Amino acid sequence: MATREWVILAPGRRKRPDDFIQPGPYSGPELSYEDDCPFCLGNEELTIEPSYIYPEEGPWKVRVVPNKYAALDPTLDTSRTKIGHFLYANGFGIAEVVIEHPIHNKTMATMSTDHIGLILGAYRERQIEIGKNENVNLITIFRNHGPRAGTSLAHPHSQIIATPMVPPHVRYPIEQAVKYFDNHGRCVYCDMIEEEIRQKDRILLESEFFVAFCPFAARSPFECRIYPKYHSASYMLITDAEIDDLAVVLHDVLARLHFGLNNPDYNYIIRSAPMGDEDTKHLHWYMVIIPKISTAAGFEIGSGIYINSVAPEDSAEFLREVDIEQ
Amino acid sequence: MATREWVILAPGRRKRPDDFIQPGPYSGPELSYEDDCPFCLGNEELTIEPSYIYPEEGPWKVRVVPNKYAALDPTLDTSRTKIGHFLYANGFGIAEVVIEHPIHNKTMATMSTDHIGLILGAYRERQIEIGKNENVNLITIFRNHGPRAGTSLAHPHSQIIATPMVPPHVRYPIEQAVKYFDNHGRCVYCDMIEEEIRQKDRILLESEFFVAFCPFAARSPFECRIYPKYHSASYMLITDAEIDDLAVVLHDVLARLHFGLNNPDYNYIIRSAPMGDEDTKHLHWYMVIIPKISTAAGFEIGSGIYINSVAPEDSAEFLREVDIEQ
Repeated sequence: MATREWVILAPGRRKRPDDFIQPGPYSGPELSYEDDCPFCLGNEELTIEPSYIYPEEGPWKVRVVPNKYAALDPTLDTSRTKIGHFLYANGFGIAEVVIEHPIHNKTMATMSTDHIGLILGAYRERQIEIGKNENVNLITIFRNHGPRAGTSLAHPHSQIIATPMVPPHVRYPIEQAVKYFDNHGRCVYCDMIEEEIRQKDRILLESEFFVAFCPFAARSPFECRIYPKYHSASYMLITDAEIDDLAVVLHDVLARLHFGLNNPDYNYIIRSAPMGDEDTKHLHWYMVIIPKISTAAGFEIGSGIYINSVAPEDSAEFLREVDIEQ
Repeated sequence: MATREWVILAPGRRKRPDDFIQPGPYSGPELSYEDDCPFCLGNEELTIEPSYIYPEEGPWKVRVVPNKYAALDPTLDTSRTKIGHFLYANGFGIAEVVIEHPIHNKTMATMSTDHIGLILGAYRERQIEIGKNENVNLITIFRNHGPRAGTSLAHPHSQIIATPMVPPHVRYPIEQAVKYFDNHGRCVYCDMIEEEIRQKDRILLESEFFVAFCPFAARSPFECRIYPKYHSASYMLITDAEIDDLAVVLHDVLARLHFGLNNPDYNYIIRSAPMGDEDTKHLHWYMVIIPKISTAAGFEIGSGIYINSVAPEDSAEFLREVDIEQ
C-alpha cells in the first residue's frame, strides 16, 4: 500500500517457522577481547580519531569513528560530469562506524537496554551532526550482523553512510507516499500502522511510543519492522524518552530473533526522510530488521517481487512465543 | 541514465579482479546421472507433464515442465481484495522449469552453442505461449546457478515465472524510459548501447546482432549485460538467426566467467517489456548476468545504492583475457 510492491506468500513451499532455526550452537565470538580487533577496548589506536565518544571522560561505552575503508570520501566535491551519455559524480559521502560496545563478544540481543539506549543516542547525534553538511541529502543507518549479512567483523558495530543523492529505491516510495497524502490527506505509514494494530495478528509488541510487527507484505521470513506510533519523518527528531522506549522494543525484537532462531545473521536499517524533509507530513521513519535466512534469486532480482515461504502471521506468532529470559 | 540509479565504485576498497577467483577445484557435480534427480534423462516420471519438449520425437534435448513447488498457481484468479487497508491478490501465476540438458553435470559454460540455441528457442516458445494467457502481464526468465544464487538443484535448469502484476521495481525504470523518450525521441537503451560501443573499454564482445559488456553503472564485480543492438522491447520477438547469434555471445560470456572465476555462482535474467508493450519504442529487452561473489548488506538494502569494489573497465579487461578454449 505504501510502496505498491508485491510479495508472494508461497503456499506450495510454505515452511514451518522452526525450519529456519540456525544450525549448531550459538555462534557468536567466544572471547571478550581480541588483540587485533580494531574495535576492542584498548585498541583505539587502530582506528581513526572518533567523531563521537560516550561518555567523554573515563572508559568509553560507545565510540563513533570514520570508516577506514570507506567507499565514499568527505573531502571530494559533489560535482557531476557527463562522460558521453553517462552521469558521473565524484564519490563525496560520509561513512562512519558506530562501535557499539567495548566488549568483543557482546551483541545487541545480549546487551542491557540502557546500553542500547546509548547506541541509539549516538545514532541521533551523528545524524544531526552529519546532516549539517549541506551536500548530504540522505543518511542511512544500518547494522550488518554476521557474514551472510555482509560483515566479517564480529565486534558489535553499526554504520552510518551519508550520500549526496537520493536514489530511485528511496525516491519511488516517497512519490507513492506523496500521492497517498494528496489523495487522503494522511500519512500512508500512519494509516498502515493503525491498520496493523487493528488487525493485531502480526504484532510483536507495542510500547508507549512504538510498535513492532512482521509487516503484511513481509519480503522474507521473520522480517520485523519498528515504527514510531506518533508521526515523525526522521529519526534525528527522536527525544530522549522515545530513545529509552525504543531501546526496550529493539532489544525485545532482537532477543526474540537471537534466542528463537539461534543467532541468525541479519541486517537492520533505520530509514529516515531525506535531509530537509524531516518535518514533512507524508513520510515516516522506521526500522526494518531482515534476518538473512533465505536467498534472493533470479526472480527476486529480476522482478523485485519477493517470494516469502512463511506467512508474517506465523513469523509473528513464532517470535511472540520465544522465551527471551535466557 | 536509464534508471537514475547510482552505484559507488569504492576506491578505498578496490580489489583486483583476481581476488574474486573462487576457491578450490571446479565445483560442479561429478556424475552425469543421479538416481534421484528429477531432471535427469530417464527420471521423467518425477516431474509433471511437460509443456514443451524438443525434439518432439526421440530422446529429448530440452524439456520444460510446470514447477512442482511453484509459488504461484495458474488455476487461481487474479481478483484483488482489500483486507482493511491492505491489498491482497490471489496467487495467480505460471511457473515453469526449463530443463536445459539431459546430462546432470553439464552447465551452460560447457555446452555447445547449438545446444544453448535450443534452450533460447524454448524460452521464446514458452514466453509466446504463456503470454497468451490474458491475465499474464510480466514474464521473467531467469537462471540460478549454485547455492549462493539460490538454487540447490545441480542439474542445469532455468525458470520462467509469469505474474499478473508489474511491480514498481520494473515499472519505475519504465517510467524513466518513457520520460527519456518524450524528451529525446529515442529509446534510452539504444542510446546507452551506442555509447558503450563508442567508449569501448567495457565491451566484452560484439556480434552481428548483440553486444556484451560490463555496464558503466555495474552494481557488482563482473556484472555482464547482453543487449540486442537492434531495437526490440521483448525477447519473444527474437528470430531464429538472432537466437543462433545470441547463443554464441551468451556461451562466450558464461565461459569467461566459468574459467576466469572458477565456476562462480550467478543469476541471469532476461528482462522484457510487460506483455502488450512488446512493440513499444521506449523499452529494450536485455540479459543481465550477476555473479554472486559479493554480499548486499544493510546499506545496499536500505538505499538501493550498490558499492562495487571493481571498476567495470577492470572487470571487462579481466574477462576479455580469459582463455575459454580449455
